[in-house]
Amino acid sequence: MPLEVISENRSFGGVQSVYSHGSDACGCDMTFAVYAPPQAADGPVPVLWYLSGLTCTHENAMTKGGFQKFAADHGIAVVFPDTSPRGEGVADDEAYDLGMGAGFYVNATREPWAPHFKMYDYIVSDLRGVVADLLPGDVAHGITGHSMGGHGALTIAMKNPDLFASVSAFAPIANPTRSDWGRKQLSAYLGDDEANWAQYDATLLLEELGWKGDMLIDQGADDQFLDLLKPEALAGAMTARRQPGQFRMQAGYDHSYYFVSTFAGDHVAWHAERLKS
Amino acid sequence: MPLEVISENRSFGGVQSVYSHGSDACGCDMTFAVYAPPQAADGPVPVLWYLSGLTCTHENAMTKGGFQKFAADHGIAVVFPDTSPRGEGVADDEAYDLGMGAGFYVNATREPWAPHFKMYDYIVSDLRGVVADLLPGDVAHGITGHSMGGHGALTIAMKNPDLFASVSAFAPIANPTRSDWGRKQLSAYLGDDEANWAQYDATLLLEELGWKGDMLIDQGADDQFLDLLKPEALAGAMTARRQPGQFRMQAGYDHSYYFVSTFAGDHVAWHAERLKS
Repeated sequence: MPLEVISENRSFGGVQSVYSHGSDACGCDMTFAVYAPPQAADGPVPVLWYLSGLTCTHENAMTKGGFQKFAADHGIAVVFPDTSPRGEGVADDEAYDLGMGAGFYVNATREPWAPHFKMYDYIVSDLRGVVADLLPGDVAHGITGHSMGGHGALTIAMKNPDLFASVSAFAPIANPTRSDWGRKQLSAYLGDDEANWAQYDATLLLEELGWKGDMLIDQGADDQFLDLLKPEALAGAMTARRQPGQFRMQAGYDHSYYFVSTFAGDHVAWHAERLKS
Repeated sequence: MPLEVISENRSFGGVQSVYSHGSDACGCDMTFAVYAPPQAADGPVPVLWYLSGLTCTHENAMTKGGFQKFAADHGIAVVFPDTSPRGEGVADDEAYDLGMGAGFYVNATREPWAPHFKMYDYIVSDLRGVVADLLPGDVAHGITGHSMGGHGALTIAMKNPDLFASVSAFAPIANPTRSDWGRKQLSAYLGDDEANWAQYDATLLLEELGWKGDMLIDQGADDQFLDLLKPEALAGAMTARRQPGQFRMQAGYDHSYYFVSTFAGDHVAWHAERLKS
């Protein structure tokens, strides 16, 4: 899997890079971005993964999230994966919320999605290995994400507490097995047996597994997608389980990157504190 | 000129808005963005204008510049105008650097540009009036910009020291009368008599008028457009005139918004100090 450098830009004293590489899991070339803070020039730094939401690529959070300043302040790297396989021969759907740009961080088992839509394996195995080569050393990794990416961050972290030391989310899709942002996609990717869906539902995983540390969730109170995100399900599961953490309902904020960028600094600082301890 | 609200998003405790309004100067509808910091809810706040570069609209710096955090920290508003008139009936050119997206902040006097390309009047008169209504009070205004917008900020400030109390620029087109980023456009918009061009050249205006205060210029040392920007002309004029200010050559930075966002905080702080004094 040779790594191709697509771009490199100096940013806040570090380097914002975009790479392409062949993915075994997805069976296609994948693009991702990495912000290496200035401290990376002097030795290993902790790594924060940011998983993006529906319709996004590696680029949205890289250009609009404003994470670089805070990552440089705290000396941690940030990885921005794509949200699905792409390219000729990769299945797609006309809807914005299925197929390309909508991988939901699952391993698809049904046609036409199964051959390429293995985003779960891509994140925890393929890209994890590539990132370990790019940002070497015995360093801790944290994971966060927005919307569909918040769903990805929470579910991947809870299922892989050995891989990730910290987790947070921005307006996550919190209960996809009971939402139109979830039931449609889990049915398409996994089939109609709902028993197979639970492994990809943050609320159900929290009830079953919980999380080893504390977790930070931010949600805009004026989010236009509250009915689809179902934050009350996750908050209810957190409190019922006595899960350590914070669920913050932020007055006046919507679902956009203006919300994400406003709280990006809080999340980077929160992960940095846990990844460096 | 009724003002139409296109969007409003909560950002860093304030509001990032986009508006449309009819412009007398340009003879068409114009779009612009305003970030109002949280302090604007309690009273008048100083205003920083950010003029964008070639190919940009009001949106690029609004989404990629990262100014909102710093504007909220310092309690100043930021205005993001478009870079040219747009719409049906507005002249254009196939080149990226002439016509729509490339107004160069001049008042065009030649066909086919003269009817709409009055970006100088649009900024100092039309939009200035609209902004005064949106952000009322006896407040000071500063101006900055990137590339073509840095050219706009420097030339507009030096010609209007009564309107602006502070000026800075990111990688400005510094000497357009002697650059391919300038000669082509000034010739098209103003005709071939170069005597008419000097009023839109920051280096020549600095030699002739200077600036009443100090000025801050940032330039990436690895900027891919150094030959077109001609920073050495502006730095030479600044030092020859003993113009107070700073010209900072930033190692490793290119011409992108990664450069702008890295130094956005410095510029906002610099303007805030002068606008509030």
